Amino acid sequence: MRFASDNASGISQPIMEALEAAHADYAMPYGADDYTKAAADALDELFEHECASFFVPTGTAANALALASICQPWGAIFAHHDAHVMDDECGAPEFFTLGAKLIGIAGNNGKIDPAALRSTLTDYPRGLVKQVQPAALTLSQATESGTVYSVKKLTELTGIAHEAGLHVHLDGARFANALLKLKASPAEMSWKAGVDVMSFGATKNGTMMCEAVIFFDPDLAKDFLYRRKRGGHTVSKARFLGAQMLAYLNGGHWLELAGHANAMAARLARGLKQVKGVRLPWPTDVNEVFAVLPGRIDKALSAAGALYYHWPSAALDPGQKLKGGEVFVRLVTSFATRPEDVDRFLEVAQRAR
Amino acid sequence: MRFASDNASGISQPIMEALEAAHADYAMPYGADDYTKAAADALDELFEHECASFFVPTGTAANALALASICQPWGAIFAHHDAHVMDDECGAPEFFTLGAKLIGIAGNNGKIDPAALRSTLTDYPRGLVKQVQPAALTLSQATESGTVYSVKKLTELTGIAHEAGLHVHLDGARFANALLKLKASPAEMSWKAGVDVMSFGATKNGTMMCEAVIFFDPDLAKDFLYRRKRGGHTVSKARFLGAQMLAYLNGGHWLELAGHANAMAARLARGLKQVKGVRLPWPTDVNEVFAVLPGRIDKALSAAGALYYHWPSAALDPGQKLKGGEVFVRLVTSFATRPEDVDRFLEVAQRAR
Amino acid sequence: MRFASDNASGISQPIMEALEAAHADYAMPYGADDYTKAAADALDELFEHECASFFVPTGTAANALALASICQPWGAIFAHHDAHVMDDECGAPEFFTLGAKLIGIAGNNGKIDPAALRSTLTDYPRGLVKQVQPAALTLSQATESGTVYSVKKLTELTGIAHEAGLHVHLDGARFANALLKLKASPAEMSWKAGVDVMSFGATKNGTMMCEAVIFFDPDLAKDFLYRRKRGGHTVSKARFLGAQMLAYLNGGHWLELAGHANAMAARLARGLKQVKGVRLPWPTDVNEVFAVLPGRIDKALSAAGALYYHWPSAALDPGQKLKGGEVFVRLVTSFATRPEDVDRFLEVAQRAR
Amino acid sequence: MRFASDNASGISQPIMEALEAAHADYAMPYGADDYTKAAADALDELFEHECASFFVPTGTAANALALASICQPWGAIFAHHDAHVMDDECGAPEFFTLGAKLIGIAGNNGKIDPAALRSTLTDYPRGLVKQVQPAALTLSQATESGTVYSVKKLTELTGIAHEAGLHVHLDGARFANALLKLKASPAEMSWKAGVDVMSFGATKNGTMMCEAVIFFDPDLAKDFLYRRKRGGHTVSKARFLGAQMLAYLNGGHWLELAGHANAMAARLARGLKQVKGVRLPWPTDVNEVFAVLPGRIDKALSAAGALYYHWPSAALDPGQKLKGGEVFVRLVTSFATRPEDVDRFLEVAQRAR
Repeated sequence: MRFASDNASGISQPIMEALEAAHADYAMPYGADDYTKAAADALDELFEHECASFFVPTGTAANALALASICQPWGAIFAHHDAHVMDDECGAPEFFTLGAKLIGIAGNNGKIDPAALRSTLTDYPRGLVKQVQPAALTLSQATESGTVYSVKKLTELTGIAHEAGLHVHLDGARFANALLKLKASPAEMSWKAGVDVMSFGATKNGTMMCEAVIFFDPDLAKDFLYRRKRGGHTVSKARFLGAQMLAYLNGGHWLELAGHANAMAARLARGLKQVKGVRLPWPTDVNEVFAVLPGRIDKALSAAGALYYHWPSAALDPGQKLKGGEVFVRLVTSFATRPEDVDRFLEVAQRAR
Repeated sequence: MRFASDNASGISQPIMEALEAAHADYAMPYGADDYTKAAADALDELFEHECASFFVPTGTAANALALASICQPWGAIFAHHDAHVMDDECGAPEFFTLGAKLIGIAGNNGKIDPAALRSTLTDYPRGLVKQVQPAALTLSQATESGTVYSVKKLTELTGIAHEAGLHVHLDGARFANALLKLKASPAEMSWKAGVDVMSFGATKNGTMMCEAVIFFDPDLAKDFLYRRKRGGHTVSKARFLGAQMLAYLNGGHWLELAGHANAMAARLARGLKQVKGVRLPWPTDVNEVFAVLPGRIDKALSAAGALYYHWPSAALDPGQKLKGGEVFVRLVTSFATRPEDVDRFLEVAQRAR
Repeated sequence: MRFASDNASGISQPIMEALEAAHADYAMPYGADDYTKAAADALDELFEHECASFFVPTGTAANALALASICQPWGAIFAHHDAHVMDDECGAPEFFTLGAKLIGIAGNNGKIDPAALRSTLTDYPRGLVKQVQPAALTLSQATESGTVYSVKKLTELTGIAHEAGLHVHLDGARFANALLKLKASPAEMSWKAGVDVMSFGATKNGTMMCEAVIFFDPDLAKDFLYRRKRGGHTVSKARFLGAQMLAYLNGGHWLELAGHANAMAARLARGLKQVKGVRLPWPTDVNEVFAVLPGRIDKALSAAGALYYHWPSAALDPGQKLKGGEVFVRLVTSFATRPEDVDRFLEVAQRAR
Repeated sequence: MRFASDNASGISQPIMEALEAAHADYAMPYGADDYTKAAADALDELFEHECASFFVPTGTAANALALASICQPWGAIFAHHDAHVMDDECGAPEFFTLGAKLIGIAGNNGKIDPAALRSTLTDYPRGLVKQVQPAALTLSQATESGTVYSVKKLTELTGIAHEAGLHVHLDGARFANALLKLKASPAEMSWKAGVDVMSFGATKNGTMMCEAVIFFDPDLAKDFLYRRKRGGHTVSKARFLGAQMLAYLNGGHWLELAGHANAMAARLARGLKQVKGVRLPWPTDVNEVFAVLPGRIDKALSAAGALYYHWPSAALDPGQKLKGGEVFVRLVTSFATRPEDVDRFLEVAQRAR
């Protein structure tokens, strides 16, 4: 009953085997190896686009380096109030951009409200020297609330951004999970929807440590190698990032992994909705279930050894406030979640008094 | 005949097996797992000291984060002219320290000359506001010239530094190789010799991607977790860093790996000294052989498929200048270097006309 | 009818004369002169406290340097949503703190609401590595809405901050104006109310370019000289900052200047309240009048040559939204404002159709 | 007998009068005033070029902001070992460039040796990711040794820089003094000689606090306003910078001021050369005299109340080392230096035993 984080899962068997297969090779360091090249090519094919792709060990590095590539130190980056870059990276975007300002935008379900974006943008007119300059919009797909923007909504938001002269970043830490929800192609959910650069997550979904930064506009990538090196994110034995990514993408493995995680979350959400006193504030679009639990259920689950995080109630939308004794929790499934654990969790919840 | 870099080697078999053994576990992310704890404990035992140890994926991250912990943005860091932090990290120390100044110190054999250090320190009086303030000394053991400071020399240099109020960092990217040369204990070659914080390398010597930052004075580590997170170096599936380090240290595996690398370099150096026209500017203390080759030998080796880097002649000591046609090269061995490759390399060199 | 900014006024006669008197002296540079020393002593006396005081040419420098002294790069600074440091300094606090995060707090009348502060602080628990760490509260006195905190309210807010382990900065760009409103002593409105460091403004109130950063806890100032030098704010002919400050404080001159500015604003506010269709959203505590004007009045004033800025309606409190045709404006008086200009302005407003 | 620094002098009478004349005006703040505009126009005329000129209060700000405009954070700035930006600004260039690296170049007489520049540039090949990237050359005219590059030498150095793809900055803190030495036009000693952006000093030569950053290529200036604001160097009552610069340039006043300073230094140098035991290591091209004094003369001068700084002997060229008892000193004259003080100084030196 381990639902703390998809980061708490291990490495999928095929990816582990790919590391094993690559482990004894001799390969030139710092990315000048065949695995890295092949993985970048695989991303080009997947996204039906000539991309500039780079691999890094962590998602925070991917986000911060991508944002630094599209925002000057005196720039403003617009993000949802609860975005990972706002609250969960200890200021990494500020560090890598060398002091840019992140501006929170409101919106229910973890999604930026287009009207709120438009309105906030009017507060940051270009050329008003006393203020930071509008530079970038960053969207999370899936969002931190476990929800997914439709392609249409993505396109609307990137349109507003481009009209205002911003570049658009997509935080795709759970890109695979979102893609399955939308039944879209990677291209449709990225550059065709107006994304300029994205963080393509793989670690939460079965690799050991590997994320890609993918530029759809290679011009934006011209300084990336220096930024990455300077940030300490140029891995010497880079082949092992490439090998992970290749195995991750090979034969649709990444979508199988995400498919399982999504199915487990759906099973969990379905079950929780049957439990008296439990509310789900947001739809379960991917592999995260957010739930408001009566205190007694929370206690019973903890007593039974279930692992999950209490979540800040500040993240709830207006009108979703907690009532006495209720707690707000996040439950995350992964490629490794077992159906029997979901079912046992639901059983404990059902029986709690 | 692959001597380009120890980073070009793969993962040792026992370390690969440790990753395999850990791959399917569920473990709390970001370092709150048993592997990370056990690896930190193993370092405490190895160094006979209660340390504050942290794991990161790259050596550049280890160095830059360590230096940032002991140097304010307006500080000066003293390093050998040819140190890795000076020339090979694209300004990572400047980035992580947020603008500190690295001051190069001269010295033959890649080692800082104590008199040069003393003399340079007099140029940076404490409290003279118009100048950056003396903050840190960083030493490399082994050096970028493949040489090793004696424990006595280390102690002399750290003594000068401490007397001037500096903290001391040791870049131990090849700590294992140096340790074997000195036949010292890890404690003797670090905190007992006056080191305050070190980068403990493992990647060049058989892990996939794993380095430790080890603080012997835990006070200096108080902000490390924030710096690391903000730098994007807090790995989510941190257990796989811990697992690498545990396997690396287990039963002296790390010293076996380094011992082989050193032996291969010694064999190579011995052989090269027999080749007419070849000079070795520095002693071969660890797993790097620096050699001045006649052009014809360089050509013959390249033609035979040998891999190695030409090295900047500026790194040579005064009096070691190249003569017409000579090239300066670096040859690096690793745990994976095969004796037959060394011998074939020497044979090609011997026969070159 | 020039109400654009108090920065648009010139230099008061006595301050001009002090510059003239000092202009031909020989004096050691960078602050090692008698004027600087005497001005710091005068501030000690004024504040009835042994302070560490430093002079800089601009208010943005004063704020940013002060905040950098109390906030690490991974820190959070809490400020009112509309504070000058949030919106009007192009990210100077982010630059000087090297990447800290400013967190906006709500509150009517330009003042931080204590409940909102408490609530926001619970979102930033100390030691949660994934988030920036709570470091500082900055208060503006007077506020950007031209209002003034009571000493009791200041004390309440600094109490909340200190309890949470924050340091407290006061942006006193209009300290003199606020002081007169409260009829408090400088000590009562600063360190006795819990302020640790303040920006003491003088430029808006009659000097040419001179602001002080005053530390009530000298420990916080230990790196200030390096930060200031590195920021390019260590004026070589520093005596001319000292001379300005001395003349500013001499015989209560600063309070006379602010008294006139406040009186002019009061006269303007009184008059505007008599004009049909005009609303003042906030009390006029100092030398700034904020007014909602019917469009026809705005047009008439502009046509008559009145100078003032339109202000973002986003700054209005909930419930104060503009109705059709209305505009929101800021009118600032200064030591140099003439009563006849105020009266003429009111006359134009009265007659507008 | 005050030769500590030209910064220790006051304000010239005409400049003081210009401030007085401007002091009571109402003028829009932050540079949107007529004085600022007129001063920029005056610089265009003086330099016979359409420039983008900006005013700041200090020379450190001018240098650091200019360098930040032509060097990315991962860039290298090449400067003479003893340049002001290297040693006297507490890392301001590193701060404003956000972590660039300054590389010292050797050369006698305080001047960069073209061969040394060429040689150093080969150590920084463009595109080698592990190293900082060559970005800018900065030259000081006059140099920190009080010497002046010929126009031909300037042109040679900027030619080497441009060929290597660098931008060129000129630190003209003593531009006027150097110009008189060369009998060149401002254009000939700047953009015609290959300078892209310069710091045009005025403070040392008679203003109170005012320096200009002049871009000869306006494209390089596109972010300057944001950088300046963010650095806290956008003076609110900017007219007083403009007024200083206007008076400084008016009718060649700046050259009269510098002419006097240079003449006083020449008188001092001439006299010192007559004093037994005194050596001048460098020619006296401008208003600085560097001298090696026997200890007895140094003591006699101090005893007589002469003010000057001892200078680091490390700045001496090879072969100019101090002998027993000798001290190395810097003597600076200014527009305000009196001939009788020079003569008395010489007399004391002559008589010292």
